[in-house]
Amino acid sequence: MSFLEKIQNQVDSKGSFLCVGLDPDLARLPDGISKDAKGVLEFLSGIVEATGEFAAVYKPNWAFFAALGIDGHRVLLELIEKTRAEAPVILDAKVGDIGNTAKAYAKFAFEQMDADAVTLAPYMGGDSIAPFLEYKDRFSFVLGITSNPTASQVEKIQTSGGGAVFEELASTFEQEFAQPNWGWVAGATQIGEMKALRDRSPNRWLLIPGVGAQGGSLEESLEASRDSQGRIRGLVNASRSILYASNGGDYAEAAGRAAKEMAEQMRSINE
Amino acid sequence: MSFLEKIQNQVDSKGSFLCVGLDPDLARLPDGISKDAKGVLEFLSGIVEATGEFAAVYKPNWAFFAALGIDGHRVLLELIEKTRAEAPVILDAKVGDIGNTAKAYAKFAFEQMDADAVTLAPYMGGDSIAPFLEYKDRFSFVLGITSNPTASQVEKIQTSGGGAVFEELASTFEQEFAQPNWGWVAGATQIGEMKALRDRSPNRWLLIPGVGAQGGSLEESLEASRDSQGRIRGLVNASRSILYASNGGDYAEAAGRAAKEMAEQMRSINE
Repeated sequence: MSFLEKIQNQVDSKGSFLCVGLDPDLARLPDGISKDAKGVLEFLSGIVEATGEFAAVYKPNWAFFAALGIDGHRVLLELIEKTRAEAPVILDAKVGDIGNTAKAYAKFAFEQMDADAVTLAPYMGGDSIAPFLEYKDRFSFVLGITSNPTASQVEKIQTSGGGAVFEELASTFEQEFAQPNWGWVAGATQIGEMKALRDRSPNRWLLIPGVGAQGGSLEESLEASRDSQGRIRGLVNASRSILYASNGGDYAEAAGRAAKEMAEQMRSINE
Repeated sequence: MSFLEKIQNQVDSKGSFLCVGLDPDLARLPDGISKDAKGVLEFLSGIVEATGEFAAVYKPNWAFFAALGIDGHRVLLELIEKTRAEAPVILDAKVGDIGNTAKAYAKFAFEQMDADAVTLAPYMGGDSIAPFLEYKDRFSFVLGITSNPTASQVEKIQTSGGGAVFEELASTFEQEFAQPNWGWVAGATQIGEMKALRDRSPNRWLLIPGVGAQGGSLEESLEASRDSQGRIRGLVNASRSILYASNGGDYAEAAGRAAKEMAEQMRSINE
């Protein structure tokens, strides 16, 4: 089953567009959890179990596991395997390289880690994307317009052709990659830009960070994600607001409640 | 000792600006070397030993080790430790994320892997760079203008302000980051663009891929790398032409000869 089919199944069965970001920060692990790789696995397993009913997809970020060294990679592998029983997994890696190197990253993400999807950085252009699209049942979310302040320094530069860099890139990739197995990362703090991206790329799924701690609006994001047939085509990420909903022994229950609340909001927007 | 001091020592003592890229491709490992992580360590240890006299710096690319899974990460760690006895090590990772995530990648590169330097991708802007610069004795090479064909799709887009995206980015980062501990990746196949980057960023060290297999000129690259005082400030990478100089039992000797030849060319250009 392809990633898109899996996502559709998740949306249909759970009524949720929620992506739970698995970004383990040792300093913020709840009381009673050991501040190491073993603790991270225990903590995130508890999060996944408690939120499984409400999450359409999960997104572990490679950086936080890599920062734990060899043990972190072992934990990431085990976590992805466990999590895929609940929902598909996007490995947030933002990799961007070319040729054989890009192929090696694809092998890492899709074969070694067995993730359903990955995030990619497009600074070097389509050469960084093509090798990932060859895995036809897997999916790639390409950084389009991100939610951080310095997105202005490359992404939003105005081009001589009119429009910003991310808009020109959207047109280029739409033309270059007719394949169905890729979409965009588009930050919730950039609703105007998200709409501009939609104009150039009307039907691709969006992965949307920036709701919650960063201040983006859930409703505006989901509305802006609608495709040319009016269907919501956005997966809204929440990390800290779910992971650290409580730092006590009830962290899993609190995460479950936070995820449930977001999923219910999403369901009502979709109705 | 900072990365820049280490590099200066290397250049002074070896007369070489050679960066040996450690990109292990299982399919190309020499006869008699096992096609697995263990073989990769044996192969690259032989390469480092044979080329140590001629290399100013080494550059393992994370992708190729990650593609080997947990064992690959263990090999990378051991390889970096061994290699740093010969010359500083740039971990080619092209990471680009923000906030705590960027901090986690910096921790991975500089603490877990203990690399002297790292490569970074700037699509998300300066937010992806700042956390790395806090490691004052370490160094970051930011992707500026790369050697691949689709560099045109983002890097070379003409902006409304005049100049290309990579030029505008160079001015932005020069203004934003006065710190000495970063430079640019600039591809040898793009000599005109490398000069344009130099105009905006006259004194930073360049990491230069694209000589050899990709067709860039060693001499033109080193000349274009000269800083405002006329000093060569470029590290020219060679990977395949050294690693796979022979696929027989003499692969290390052949790599040593290939590295020696490049170092001698460099010395004569620098005289």
